[in-house]
Amino acid sequence: MLLLLQKELSERQLSAVLDLASELGLQSTALDEVGCSVPRLLRLAGPGAPEQRSRFEDLAGVAKVLDAGEARERHERASREDRVVEAAAARFGGGHVSLIAGPCAVEDGDRLVEIARAARDQGATLLRGGAFKPRTSPYSFQGLGRPGLDLLARVKAEVGLGVVTEVLETREIDHVAEVADVIQIGARSMASSPLLIEAGRTGKPILLKRGFGATVREFLMAAEFILSTGNDRIILCERGVRGFDTITRNLLDVGAVAHLKQATHLPVIVDPSHAAGRSDLVRQVARAGIAAGADGLIVEVHSHPEEAHSDGAQAISISELGRIVQDTQALADLDGRTFVQQETLGLRA
Amino acid sequence: MLLLLQKELSERQLSAVLDLASELGLQSTALDEVGCSVPRLLRLAGPGAPEQRSRFEDLAGVAKVLDAGEARERHERASREDRVVEAAAARFGGGHVSLIAGPCAVEDGDRLVEIARAARDQGATLLRGGAFKPRTSPYSFQGLGRPGLDLLARVKAEVGLGVVTEVLETREIDHVAEVADVIQIGARSMASSPLLIEAGRTGKPILLKRGFGATVREFLMAAEFILSTGNDRIILCERGVRGFDTITRNLLDVGAVAHLKQATHLPVIVDPSHAAGRSDLVRQVARAGIAAGADGLIVEVHSHPEEAHSDGAQAISISELGRIVQDTQALADLDGRTFVQQETLGLRA
Amino acid sequence: MLLLLQKELSERQLSAVLDLASELGLQSTALDEVGCSVPRLLRLAGPGAPEQRSRFEDLAGVAKVLDAGEARERHERASREDRVVEAAAARFGGGHVSLIAGPCAVEDGDRLVEIARAARDQGATLLRGGAFKPRTSPYSFQGLGRPGLDLLARVKAEVGLGVVTEVLETREIDHVAEVADVIQIGARSMASSPLLIEAGRTGKPILLKRGFGATVREFLMAAEFILSTGNDRIILCERGVRGFDTITRNLLDVGAVAHLKQATHLPVIVDPSHAAGRSDLVRQVARAGIAAGADGLIVEVHSHPEEAHSDGAQAISISELGRIVQDTQALADLDGRTFVQQETLGLRA
Amino acid sequence: MLLLLQKELSERQLSAVLDLASELGLQSTALDEVGCSVPRLLRLAGPGAPEQRSRFEDLAGVAKVLDAGEARERHERASREDRVVEAAAARFGGGHVSLIAGPCAVEDGDRLVEIARAARDQGATLLRGGAFKPRTSPYSFQGLGRPGLDLLARVKAEVGLGVVTEVLETREIDHVAEVADVIQIGARSMASSPLLIEAGRTGKPILLKRGFGATVREFLMAAEFILSTGNDRIILCERGVRGFDTITRNLLDVGAVAHLKQATHLPVIVDPSHAAGRSDLVRQVARAGIAAGADGLIVEVHSHPEEAHSDGAQAISISELGRIVQDTQALADLDGRTFVQQETLGLRA
Repeated sequence: MLLLLQKELSERQLSAVLDLASELGLQSTALDEVGCSVPRLLRLAGPGAPEQRSRFEDLAGVAKVLDAGEARERHERASREDRVVEAAAARFGGGHVSLIAGPCAVEDGDRLVEIARAARDQGATLLRGGAFKPRTSPYSFQGLGRPGLDLLARVKAEVGLGVVTEVLETREIDHVAEVADVIQIGARSMASSPLLIEAGRTGKPILLKRGFGATVREFLMAAEFILSTGNDRIILCERGVRGFDTITRNLLDVGAVAHLKQATHLPVIVDPSHAAGRSDLVRQVARAGIAAGADGLIVEVHSHPEEAHSDGAQAISISELGRIVQDTQALADLDGRTFVQQETLGLRA
Repeated sequence: MLLLLQKELSERQLSAVLDLASELGLQSTALDEVGCSVPRLLRLAGPGAPEQRSRFEDLAGVAKVLDAGEARERHERASREDRVVEAAAARFGGGHVSLIAGPCAVEDGDRLVEIARAARDQGATLLRGGAFKPRTSPYSFQGLGRPGLDLLARVKAEVGLGVVTEVLETREIDHVAEVADVIQIGARSMASSPLLIEAGRTGKPILLKRGFGATVREFLMAAEFILSTGNDRIILCERGVRGFDTITRNLLDVGAVAHLKQATHLPVIVDPSHAAGRSDLVRQVARAGIAAGADGLIVEVHSHPEEAHSDGAQAISISELGRIVQDTQALADLDGRTFVQQETLGLRA
Repeated sequence: MLLLLQKELSERQLSAVLDLASELGLQSTALDEVGCSVPRLLRLAGPGAPEQRSRFEDLAGVAKVLDAGEARERHERASREDRVVEAAAARFGGGHVSLIAGPCAVEDGDRLVEIARAARDQGATLLRGGAFKPRTSPYSFQGLGRPGLDLLARVKAEVGLGVVTEVLETREIDHVAEVADVIQIGARSMASSPLLIEAGRTGKPILLKRGFGATVREFLMAAEFILSTGNDRIILCERGVRGFDTITRNLLDVGAVAHLKQATHLPVIVDPSHAAGRSDLVRQVARAGIAAGADGLIVEVHSHPEEAHSDGAQAISISELGRIVQDTQALADLDGRTFVQQETLGLRA
Repeated sequence: MLLLLQKELSERQLSAVLDLASELGLQSTALDEVGCSVPRLLRLAGPGAPEQRSRFEDLAGVAKVLDAGEARERHERASREDRVVEAAAARFGGGHVSLIAGPCAVEDGDRLVEIARAARDQGATLLRGGAFKPRTSPYSFQGLGRPGLDLLARVKAEVGLGVVTEVLETREIDHVAEVADVIQIGARSMASSPLLIEAGRTGKPILLKRGFGATVREFLMAAEFILSTGNDRIILCERGVRGFDTITRNLLDVGAVAHLKQATHLPVIVDPSHAAGRSDLVRQVARAGIAAGADGLIVEVHSHPEEAHSDGAQAISISELGRIVQDTQALADLDGRTFVQQETLGLRA
């Protein structure tokens, strides 16, 4: 590991750095003592471990970890193959592209069955739908809660699609995990360490959304919380970051998608619905995400968008979903990737 | 209320709007039907209620609530006086300015006593200190947890300062509420509705920090979640928003402070430590916040900043805290406001 | 036109609005006078003209133009077909996709010939290269200036590619226009109205880059300055906006690309080099832009990227350019669009 | 100087670095060759010069200049005293605080005289007013141009206030310099190197506004362009950066003000009018700027704000200007600074 120390380094700060090195079994060499006996650069050698980088970064005497060397964090690709995450009929990563689709929120059983069937018929392998909804206003529809989970369970059995649903707090994790094939940690909860850890402990696949104000490093460290529980069934989801313009709800960070595919072995999908926030732009934004290398999509779709209790402006129609599936299929073909459908796996009767 | 409807309004969308108006007992008048029989502007008249604005905003047919009219939300000042929030010896709002100071995290009992005494002697009326710490990395110090709460309780008894401490998840609220004079909802949890509601239900004063990527509207609606539980003992805290530059950690939004003092009757304080992220700039940023109208400060201070387990780069020394107190006192005097100290209230022996 | 007036409207402010309406020959109807004699909503009817929206927006009494009605600005698509912009062998818009490639700056004649030939052979129809470079530091290479223009002219004759080059100030426009097939207005100059107007007056095609801090509305109004000179040979270029993360140089706004294709009839291209700022991500970002609907690319390429005097980190190699051309061709084919090459038009010997 | 080289460094890249070092007379020492013969860290020793940092940063092989050492740029404070910039009766820096006030644009001679007299009587020592206006829309009022300069000259003679006015393009610099006591480079022109250089060459004081999307480093390098002409009469102006919220027009970066006062010897003022964009918040934002350490203010004021041709929403009244002067005076007193008025200098009859 290569450390840049603070310019004005006190003796106590230096001792703290050297003590930690010695606690971690690292041998330190000062590289640069020009004009003073206090080093600015320290090379640490020894066995690497995931926690080393963070622990040095937390010291007041360390300006920057210039190179983490062998101290690899668990999310780092290093030279690893893609981690393929499987859930119900879906496969993400390793050349597999899958589609998650469904309404913003679970509202009503019959409506949900209708949307789920349509989504499945168009090519989705997982159904999204929130029973617990994170909302900006206390006066907005907050989801049906546990009865919403029951509806999801019923539809799952009836339609044969796996279910992705969000958890908002640690108290509800067991209930959510009982129904969900994939537990979603939403953008607003990305930085909630207790939630990340408890979700990780269920052993279920986790769909982790990037916070709209979070850096890629923060996003990966949120994944690292889950990985530190021993669960590596993580699907990263880029859903747009907040920008200064209001013509779209968020900005899909396609550069981050491309970067993540290099930096980590975990699969990465995009959410064009929250990125665009406008149903008329979802398709183009979805295309951009897949073309940038994403391993899948999560899309809000509704059989009657104008009647949705939430996010109606960004929900697309069933027929538009069909067009997105065609695009995704074609883009996957171009790269020799497989767009996974229930037929692909021989799961559909 | 005055609504701008979507340009391409379907009949179903219009029905949904009219049905909600009628459910809420509002009389609707179409203002504008030039060139078509579908209205673009709707005036709704009738008794106002806090939830009306959000419920109309959630409808896909409504482009914008142009004017909420009588539909006032609970955080709105309207013509109300400042809500003065009291906690231990501190007073926020209504011309009272108070100082919260302490370490980032609770680390050790003796150290905490040392810092608490110094903070109190400098003029702080509340001690800050995290037992549960929200951290970016799983390998960073996460706080002592419940034993940290016990230390806070001990120091509170010993030093005679009230305590502000953060809660990260609903499961821990009862434990935190037992010790805390003020429960802190941190920036990363601002959008967690279950946490806001459960914290509100304790009836305790809540220090609500603005998320670093949150708009002022979202911030106020987070307060509205707490207000909807009947608890209006809320201290809003502007702690800087994320910008594109890296010379400071965040940007203190002084315009938002000025706006909030107009828009709401709730007190507003600033956190110059997280805004600046650099101990050498905390004092100037604190001055800016108070000058913009803030009702107080929350500052990270440490007797040995270089040994802090977290956020050492932004913790100021005890003597710098003394200078900030002098500045705050002087700025409060200029406006005829009172900087509240334990002596002010005759609480200090 | 539909105007929302300020809530606290003075009589003078109202008069100013009514006077302007009457000056422009518009008939005004107050839509809403509930509870007061001062209107909040004004409907203006009459012949539309491009300047009307801006002139009302500039009045202190107008809160917002809710609907511009017939007052269409020149950049608006309305129901127009794509404006196809032609320059040398390139075609942008109307189903034509073209590639502009070349070095960041013109450095040396032989090197430029080498890159130009390679770019042409890979499929570029225009050569980019700056003679005048906008730089952050006065100590960086500022371009060769007029001798750089002479080199471009020489290479153009020798290699048979059209030339895109940037102008930084009105004094140099005639010199630049003499050599350039397309005059570039860079991101840092997007808001320079004198430059926009003088460039427009040359009648040459203009490549207009979006400022990295500019909204889409500001970008379109910069185009409107050019359009107001009677020149509509404009190629809009999205090149990434500044975000809060540093893993990429900028964020390519693919949602803006999709929006622009709806909002205006002018062609839109993307610059993946400045968006990514990293040669290893340029290809994925380019793919995203084309998939979102862009009519072309402008890419920095260099035969020896490590020797470039500027922007070496984002310049791609000739072979990577070949891969981008293949991707672009394939993506254009998917949509039934034409990737324009010199062969396509029978221009290459 | 201390350089961090790229991780994957080619031989050519390394040669380019070593060649530049030798051209600049610097002796290079590789500090770190663990595990390979290619260095990652290079210490360069020798005489420092302002251009060295930028020239190394421009090389593709250099990841980062970790420490510029003796290679100080001209704007750096090092251990220099404040540069006090004088213009007419105003003084900025070195404990002097001055006020610039006036309308957004020069519109009419009598109106301008009226505002100028009022501004002077309230305590302004310089009159602002644009003859050339940078506008978003071609249909907005673009300023009176040269006749506007004549009006400024007339008012200057009549009222006895110095004049600050903006230049938009190199062609007009001589005309502007003839009238202006201080030449303004606006936020939209901050990155225009030809304009910075030509303005610098006039030898006049320059008011340099930070671009709303510019980093502090970019801002200082814009100043460096002026400094490189030998002109160091520069007043830096923080006027707010663009954020993601719309309740204010921009975010005043008070942390940047505090940082700049450390980093450079040049004076720094703030523009609360463009930062807030709302006349009801200008005063609080101005207070915040002065409290953070700014050496002055530039404020938009109008005798009849509702009739202003531009920016009417942010122009304050004469009486509000009086309150801002009182605040500024009081805040300057607190720090032992001098608020400069014409009387202060015995210049008013």
